[in-house]
Amino acid sequence: MRLEGHLAPRPANHRPLTPLDFLDRACAVHPDRPAIVWRGMRWDYAGFGAIVARMMRWLGAQGVGPGDVVSVMAGNRPEMLAAHYAVPAMGAILNAVNTRLEGETVGYILRHARARLILADAPSAPVASAAAAAAGVPATVLAEPGVPGGLDLLGPAAAETMGRLADGVADEWQAIGINYTSGTTGRPKGVVITHRGAALNALGNVMALGLAAPPPVYLWTLPMFHCNGWCHTWAVTAAGGVHVCLDRVEPAAIFALIMTERVTHMACAPVVLYMMLNDPARADFRAPGPVTVVSGGAAPSEALIAGLEAMGLRFLHLYGLTESYGPATLCDPDPAGVPDLATRARRLARQGARHALLSGAEVRDPSGAPVPRDGITQGEIVLAGNTVMAGYWDDPEATEAAFAGGVFHTGDLAVMHPDGEIEIRDRAKDIIISGGENVSSLEVENALHAHPAVLFAAVVAAPHPKWGETPCAFVELKPGATATEDEIAAFARARLAGFKVPRRIVFGPVPRTATGKMQKYLLRERARALTPEG
Amino acid sequence: MRLEGHLAPRPANHRPLTPLDFLDRACAVHPDRPAIVWRGMRWDYAGFGAIVARMMRWLGAQGVGPGDVVSVMAGNRPEMLAAHYAVPAMGAILNAVNTRLEGETVGYILRHARARLILADAPSAPVASAAAAAAGVPATVLAEPGVPGGLDLLGPAAAETMGRLADGVADEWQAIGINYTSGTTGRPKGVVITHRGAALNALGNVMALGLAAPPPVYLWTLPMFHCNGWCHTWAVTAAGGVHVCLDRVEPAAIFALIMTERVTHMACAPVVLYMMLNDPARADFRAPGPVTVVSGGAAPSEALIAGLEAMGLRFLHLYGLTESYGPATLCDPDPAGVPDLATRARRLARQGARHALLSGAEVRDPSGAPVPRDGITQGEIVLAGNTVMAGYWDDPEATEAAFAGGVFHTGDLAVMHPDGEIEIRDRAKDIIISGGENVSSLEVENALHAHPAVLFAAVVAAPHPKWGETPCAFVELKPGATATEDEIAAFARARLAGFKVPRRIVFGPVPRTATGKMQKYLLRERARALTPEG
Repeated sequence: MRLEGHLAPRPANHRPLTPLDFLDRACAVHPDRPAIVWRGMRWDYAGFGAIVARMMRWLGAQGVGPGDVVSVMAGNRPEMLAAHYAVPAMGAILNAVNTRLEGETVGYILRHARARLILADAPSAPVASAAAAAAGVPATVLAEPGVPGGLDLLGPAAAETMGRLADGVADEWQAIGINYTSGTTGRPKGVVITHRGAALNALGNVMALGLAAPPPVYLWTLPMFHCNGWCHTWAVTAAGGVHVCLDRVEPAAIFALIMTERVTHMACAPVVLYMMLNDPARADFRAPGPVTVVSGGAAPSEALIAGLEAMGLRFLHLYGLTESYGPATLCDPDPAGVPDLATRARRLARQGARHALLSGAEVRDPSGAPVPRDGITQGEIVLAGNTVMAGYWDDPEATEAAFAGGVFHTGDLAVMHPDGEIEIRDRAKDIIISGGENVSSLEVENALHAHPAVLFAAVVAAPHPKWGETPCAFVELKPGATATEDEIAAFARARLAGFKVPRRIVFGPVPRTATGKMQKYLLRERARALTPEG
Repeated sequence: MRLEGHLAPRPANHRPLTPLDFLDRACAVHPDRPAIVWRGMRWDYAGFGAIVARMMRWLGAQGVGPGDVVSVMAGNRPEMLAAHYAVPAMGAILNAVNTRLEGETVGYILRHARARLILADAPSAPVASAAAAAAGVPATVLAEPGVPGGLDLLGPAAAETMGRLADGVADEWQAIGINYTSGTTGRPKGVVITHRGAALNALGNVMALGLAAPPPVYLWTLPMFHCNGWCHTWAVTAAGGVHVCLDRVEPAAIFALIMTERVTHMACAPVVLYMMLNDPARADFRAPGPVTVVSGGAAPSEALIAGLEAMGLRFLHLYGLTESYGPATLCDPDPAGVPDLATRARRLARQGARHALLSGAEVRDPSGAPVPRDGITQGEIVLAGNTVMAGYWDDPEATEAAFAGGVFHTGDLAVMHPDGEIEIRDRAKDIIISGGENVSSLEVENALHAHPAVLFAAVVAAPHPKWGETPCAFVELKPGATATEDEIAAFARARLAGFKVPRRIVFGPVPRTATGKMQKYLLRERARALTPEG
C-alpha cells in the first residue's frame, strides 16, 4: 500500500534518481580530488564540473532543451565524459555514437534519433560531418588541444560554476540516453535508457567491481560510446574516483598508465586483453598494486586467466547487453578461492548471476519455464528489473517483441548451473546444426584458442550438401606464429568430437564491431561463398 | 519528460526498489556463503532464508497481512535480523522496539503504532508482555536455544524454501518500518520509512563503509532496533557479508569476535568505543586485519582516535537521525592521509558531507538561507533526498513542522566549513546561555574529556539567578580513577573561557538512552534540583 496524505512523497524525501547527482556531490564534497587524466593533462572535480558547465552553456546557445537528442561521436576524452552529464542535465538525451561506424550508418542513426546536433572530435569529424550534412543535422568539431579552431570546452582554468545538475531532471523515468546496438544482427536499434536505470546500474557496477574507498583509478580502455562505458562514466564518479582517459587502446599505453597512474580498475573487450598478452611491451610487466580487469563478450581462456594473473591483474567476468545498460550478470568467484588454474578458468568462463540491482536473470525454455539447473539444458537468458532499458526508440514493435511474456529476451542461449550461475552456450544464431547434431561454435572456438599459435578464432556454420551445416573456422594467428590448416584441424580433432571439428579453416583477420564483438554475419557470408568441401 | 507509450515502465524494466531483494539475490546467488553467526551457531544464506520463511509462515498463521504493524523487541539475534525481511515481505510494517525502554513507553508505542502483535526475546519478555497486555496486543516470546518453550524459528536445519520476498512489495513508497525516536526530547514519534529509502540508504552505507568484496564480516555492536541498525541489517546482506550477532555489548566479547570471526566492519555509539578503550581485556589487543569502526552521536576525542588506531581500528565518523534512516553524512578523511594525530582528530570530529544517495545536507540560517562556509556561523542542519523519512506516523502536524520550507529540519546546530563539511556545534537545546553569552555544551564536554580521569562528561544548563544559566557538568570517572570537583574545574579553567567553566561538577553515571545518547533532559532536571551556587 502506497503511503498517502501527510506521508506521500514530497521534494524533501523524494527526488528523481539520477547519476547526475553523483557529480553534483563530488563537486560539492571533494572538488579538489583528481577526476580526469588525459594526455598528461589533469582536472580535479571542480575542473570536471567546469567543463560540464561550459558544455551546458554552449548547448543552451544552440537552443538545446528538454527532450532534444544530442549526438556525440568522440573517443575517450574529457568532453565525451562531460557530455554524459551536460546533455542530460539540460533534460536532453545523449546519443553516443560508435566512432568506428561508417558514414551511412551514422547518417541512419542521426535521422532515426532525430538528432538536434552532433558534436565530434577531430578523428571522427570527417565521417560525422559528412553524415550530418546528408542528414541535415548541424555538426560541430571539438578543438584538439594546442591546435587552433574547433569548439574549446576544456578552455582556461578559470572558475566556471556548475549548478546542480540533478535539478534539471524532472522525472527519473526520463530518457538519459539512446544507444544504438552495434549491429551484429541487422539495422541498429535505438536502446532508450532512463535516469533511474542509469543510476542503479552505476551503483550495481560500484558493488560488482568493488569501486570503494580509497578512490578507484579507472582506466578507460572501454569506449565511452559503448553503452555509456557500461555506465562506468557515472559509476566512477559515484565512487569519487579518477577517470584516466585513453584515446587509443594500445598495450604499451595501457601498461604505462597502469604504472604511472596506479590504475585500480579497467574494463574492456577480451580482444584488448589478448592484445596485451601478446604484446612485446608486456615483457615482464607486473602491476604495482591490485588491478581488477572486467571483461565480457567471450569466455576467457585458461591462457588468458594465467597471463593476466602473471601480470598481477584480477579477472572479473561480466555479461550484459546495450539493453541492460551494460553489465547484467557477474561471475563472482568464490571468496574462498579456487587454487587450481584450470578449474578457475572454467569457473570464470561463466557469465554468473545477476548483480545486486537487477531483479532477475534466468534461463528459460521456449514455453517460458526456467530450465533445470543442470548445467546442460539450454534455454534463453531473460532479464527483468530496474536496469533493463525502457524500450527501442520509435520502434514499438521491436520493443513489444523484446518484452514478450513480461521479461526482456536477450537472444543468448545458456545453461543454468546447479549453483544458480548462468553460462552462455551460444547466441541462438551461433548454433551449428550438423547432421542433426547441435554444435556450439563457442565450444569449438575454445578448443582452437588452446592452440599456441592462435590469437583469435571465430567459428560459424558453412552450408553443406550432406550434413546441412558444418563448422567453419576463421583464425587470426599471433604475430610471428605460423600454423597450417591441417595442424589446426588435427589439434581440434584431439579435443572435439569429429562432427565438431571445423571442415574449413581460414586464416586472416576476423571482422569485429567497434566494441570487439565478432561480426559473425560477415563470416557467415564468407563461409557461404567458400567452395563447398566434399 | 517522462517516457510514455511503448517506453512507459513495465514489470520487465521497473520494479519497486526494496532491500528485501538483497536477500532474494543472496539466497539465489550464494546460498552456501556464511550469513549469520550467533552464540557459536552458524547459518549460511540458505539457512538465513529458512528462518525468514518460518517467520513468514508463522506471521501468516497469526493473520498478519499488508499494512499491519508487527512489533519486535529483541536483541541482536537471528530472528531480529530475519524480522527485517519477513515482516515487510508480507506487506507489513516492522516496528523494532528499543529493548531498554520501560513498560509505559513500550505500551505507548504499541498503542500509537496500532501494533497487530509483538514478538519478544526472553530478556525483553517481562516488559513486552506486560506492556502488550495493557495495550491489548498479543505477545509471543521467542525460544531461547536449548531451553524448552517459546516460538522456535531457528528450528531444525531442514530446508524451508523462501519465496521471492520482493514479490510481496507492491509499491516502493510503501512503509517498511516505523521507528520510534529515542525520546531525548519528549514523547517518542513514529518515524515512517519506505522500501525505496531503505534500499537506497543501505546502498549509501555500502559505499560509505566500503562494504565491498571480499565479503565483509560485520559485527553487530549497534542494536538492530536502532534505526534498523542504521540500515546495516540490509546493507550487509546487499554486500553478501556475514552478520555476526552480539547479544550484549561487552568489550571482551567484541575483542574475541574481532579475532575469531575476522571482523572487517562494526558500528556503535561512541560510549562503546570508550568502554573498549578502558577495558582491561584490551591489554595489547591488535586487530588481525583492517577493521572499519563507524560511529556517530558525539565527536571523537583525540584520545579515542589514538586508542583505536593503536588497536588497528580505522575510525569513520557518521551523522544521522532516525528520520534519515541512520547515516546521512559522512566524514570522509582525505585519501592522501593526515599524518598528525591532533589534526586528524580535529578533522574526524566533523560530521562531514552527505552520502552518495542523499541529495542534500546543508546548514541554514533561520531565514532558510545557507550559512557562509566559514566554519564559524551557526545554523541548522537540514536534509533533503530519498533517504529522508516519509513522515511521522499518525502525526501530520509534527510531519509538516519537520518539513517546513521543503526540507527536513534536524534541530541540530552546526557550522559549514569552507570545504563543504558540516560540523555540529550543538543541538539547539544544548546551547547554554550564560550572561548573554552562548556556551556550547559540546565544547565544554570536549575540554573535560581531555582530563585523564574522565571517562564521560555531559554538560547542561543549570538555572542561575544572576547569569540566567551556567554550565553544569555530570562526570563519569574511569574505573579506578579519582578526581575532585576542584581538580576538574581547574583543568577546565586552563582550557576554557571563564564563563564556559562548569560551576557545578557532579560525579556519577550519566543517564543514556538505549542507543547511547545522553538523556540531557534528565540531567537538566537534576541540574535544576541542585542548590544554586552563589
